[in-house]
Amino acid sequence: MSRLVLKFGGTSVRNVDRIRSVAGMVKAAVDAGNEVAVVVSAMAGTTDQLVGFARDIDPSGDDREYDVVVSAGEQISAGLLAMALQALGCRSRSWLGWQLPVHSDGTHAKARITNIDIDALAAGMADGEIAVLPGFQALSPEGRITTLGRGGSDTSAVALAAALGADRCDIYTDVEGVFTCDPGIVPRARKLNRITYEEMLEMASLGAKVLQTSSVVMAMKHRVPVQVLSSFVDVPGTLVIDEENAMEDEMVSGIAYAPDEAKITLVRVADRPGVAARIFGPLAESGVNVDMIVQNVSEDGKTTDVTFTVGREDLDRAIKVIQGARAEIEYERIVADPAVVKVSVIGVGMRSHVGVAHTMFQALAAKGINIQTITTSEIKISVLIAEDYTELALRTLHSVYGLDDT
Amino acid sequence: MSRLVLKFGGTSVRNVDRIRSVAGMVKAAVDAGNEVAVVVSAMAGTTDQLVGFARDIDPSGDDREYDVVVSAGEQISAGLLAMALQALGCRSRSWLGWQLPVHSDGTHAKARITNIDIDALAAGMADGEIAVLPGFQALSPEGRITTLGRGGSDTSAVALAAALGADRCDIYTDVEGVFTCDPGIVPRARKLNRITYEEMLEMASLGAKVLQTSSVVMAMKHRVPVQVLSSFVDVPGTLVIDEENAMEDEMVSGIAYAPDEAKITLVRVADRPGVAARIFGPLAESGVNVDMIVQNVSEDGKTTDVTFTVGREDLDRAIKVIQGARAEIEYERIVADPAVVKVSVIGVGMRSHVGVAHTMFQALAAKGINIQTITTSEIKISVLIAEDYTELALRTLHSVYGLDDT
Repeated sequence: MSRLVLKFGGTSVRNVDRIRSVAGMVKAAVDAGNEVAVVVSAMAGTTDQLVGFARDIDPSGDDREYDVVVSAGEQISAGLLAMALQALGCRSRSWLGWQLPVHSDGTHAKARITNIDIDALAAGMADGEIAVLPGFQALSPEGRITTLGRGGSDTSAVALAAALGADRCDIYTDVEGVFTCDPGIVPRARKLNRITYEEMLEMASLGAKVLQTSSVVMAMKHRVPVQVLSSFVDVPGTLVIDEENAMEDEMVSGIAYAPDEAKITLVRVADRPGVAARIFGPLAESGVNVDMIVQNVSEDGKTTDVTFTVGREDLDRAIKVIQGARAEIEYERIVADPAVVKVSVIGVGMRSHVGVAHTMFQALAAKGINIQTITTSEIKISVLIAEDYTELALRTLHSVYGLDDT
Repeated sequence: MSRLVLKFGGTSVRNVDRIRSVAGMVKAAVDAGNEVAVVVSAMAGTTDQLVGFARDIDPSGDDREYDVVVSAGEQISAGLLAMALQALGCRSRSWLGWQLPVHSDGTHAKARITNIDIDALAAGMADGEIAVLPGFQALSPEGRITTLGRGGSDTSAVALAAALGADRCDIYTDVEGVFTCDPGIVPRARKLNRITYEEMLEMASLGAKVLQTSSVVMAMKHRVPVQVLSSFVDVPGTLVIDEENAMEDEMVSGIAYAPDEAKITLVRVADRPGVAARIFGPLAESGVNVDMIVQNVSEDGKTTDVTFTVGREDLDRAIKVIQGARAEIEYERIVADPAVVKVSVIGVGMRSHVGVAHTMFQALAAKGINIQTITTSEIKISVLIAEDYTELALRTLHSVYGLDDT
């Protein structure tokens, strides 16, 4: 017997028929002898509608009331799923965020779960009752409803699995698992059987939006095995696990890309202590999220070029901020490119293999793709290229690292 | 300065624009120097949709989960109204049923409020904060969400007004007040300035669906002055108050009617002790709601005729139940009429005026309308007539008692 947490996303519970179907899947897991708790998102479309109402009333309205409004979606789906499980003859009940409670740090609209009181819930589970939790919602220290930010239900599920000491957290979604690359761009991409937390984290933060980043961080921290699988197709998904348990010995596990990036280069910036702070401080204050940062050594000892990327929708704002701080930063001119894409090669295997980067650079050069900037981490190499070459670069790299489905 | 509870129904908050408009009305009441708490229904259509989801999953599903699902509608509108008030520069916060809490007896789907912990809310109000409560929802002794049954938000508002010792509870709705008769049938019906609790109760339970019956009972019990008024037209509504304060000295305050009734007569029932229990016990057990009951004295000392009315949708079921209990009840035959209407003349004034009933019977007879059965209470006379005569009877009685708008 295993103790499992099953999480179903918005498309998996998008209408009453789908909720019935989810209830059937949960019952099957129980009938197979498992102890089961379920976490659900709001029915697809509900959260968007509620956020729309709140933003319509006041785009910068009180986050405490925003949380009251948008948390209602998960409350609805949790109650409906508990009813659907009962209709199949299962014992089940919903546990709302404030009922257990699921404690949070009280940062409204983007709270972090601090701990979950599982005693009552675990007692019910041990007695054969299926617990159904609304994802996304928690309780602040002041006794008010908090939400975890968009996609927070994944984090709710992993946090519950950690608190319950569950054997696995299954995240049901509308894709069959984690792929070596976006199958929409690389038709020969294949589903991974296993991936490490670290790799998943790089994939998740790079646009392969299968799991919410903070849920992967929490799974890694508590060593919760997570399975990503489809609620529509009954095949095994991708297991996200410890490196020790990841048996595959691939050099590279996947190719990720971050579209809609824009590049800004500050040419001949005065190279003296604190220059980075003078550039990125004002950007952070104005809410511009900076991704890659590249600063090379100074050629003349007096000036240097600083390149960084921002989301394309933030480009104009970022330029205005930099222009406004020209006196403090001291640069010659700004060069902006609104049409770049970041392509990354990811794999824990590259730590023990040499030549991974060389292979990447050579393959791109052979196709005539110019690399604009390079950054590396222990398990990732990222390059910035012109957006037009996205498909060619991804397919080329996917082949050269032997990831193609055969 | 007065302490007011303002309650807005579903049509009054049916979209974001209407919620903004309600916020403006609340602000006006505050600016006029009042301490204000607000109770809101769910946005029009929301509750029907949620009830539909729940019933679709299981028409007889767990009422505890049903309450989790359907209470979400009021949570949404309460958060949105608090945001809209803040957008107008008011201090405001929502208080959910479980947060105060609003205690109930725990009868899911049709709970009764037992008491409301108002300390935190009253402290906020005294400090200038506008409290916004979702109507309809409360907390069971087991710590689960309960709802009060359809229309329960009126009761929430009156209960809050009672707990706060409010000077008045204003129920904003889509009509301008309580009318002497249904203006859709009697064009010369006029709005009443005042009506007693007792009269309102008879009106409410007879199809003049302006206020939920249980809210009137609660207002009468705690002597809370209630005003029914329109959220769309800025004119005074109808005040529902104590008889001592009701200045109008009318003999009759209004004419009510209950459509969709059906009549059943059991002919020649064996007239021995316990006959009523043998008839109405099985009906109650099968959930058939019986309204009028008329049993005359026995002519021969051995048998009697018993007539009663049920909702038209329950007629077939009621007949089956009576047929199934034929051996115990002992009757000769059943006569059913599916097309009757109950017309009632209501007024506390009839206690001190003679001839009210006589005027009614005479007026109906003059129009050739046959009275099938008669029942009376201290402030009401009800007759059952053929459905075809509904309009004629209502207009005739409205004129004969001097209620016509001139």
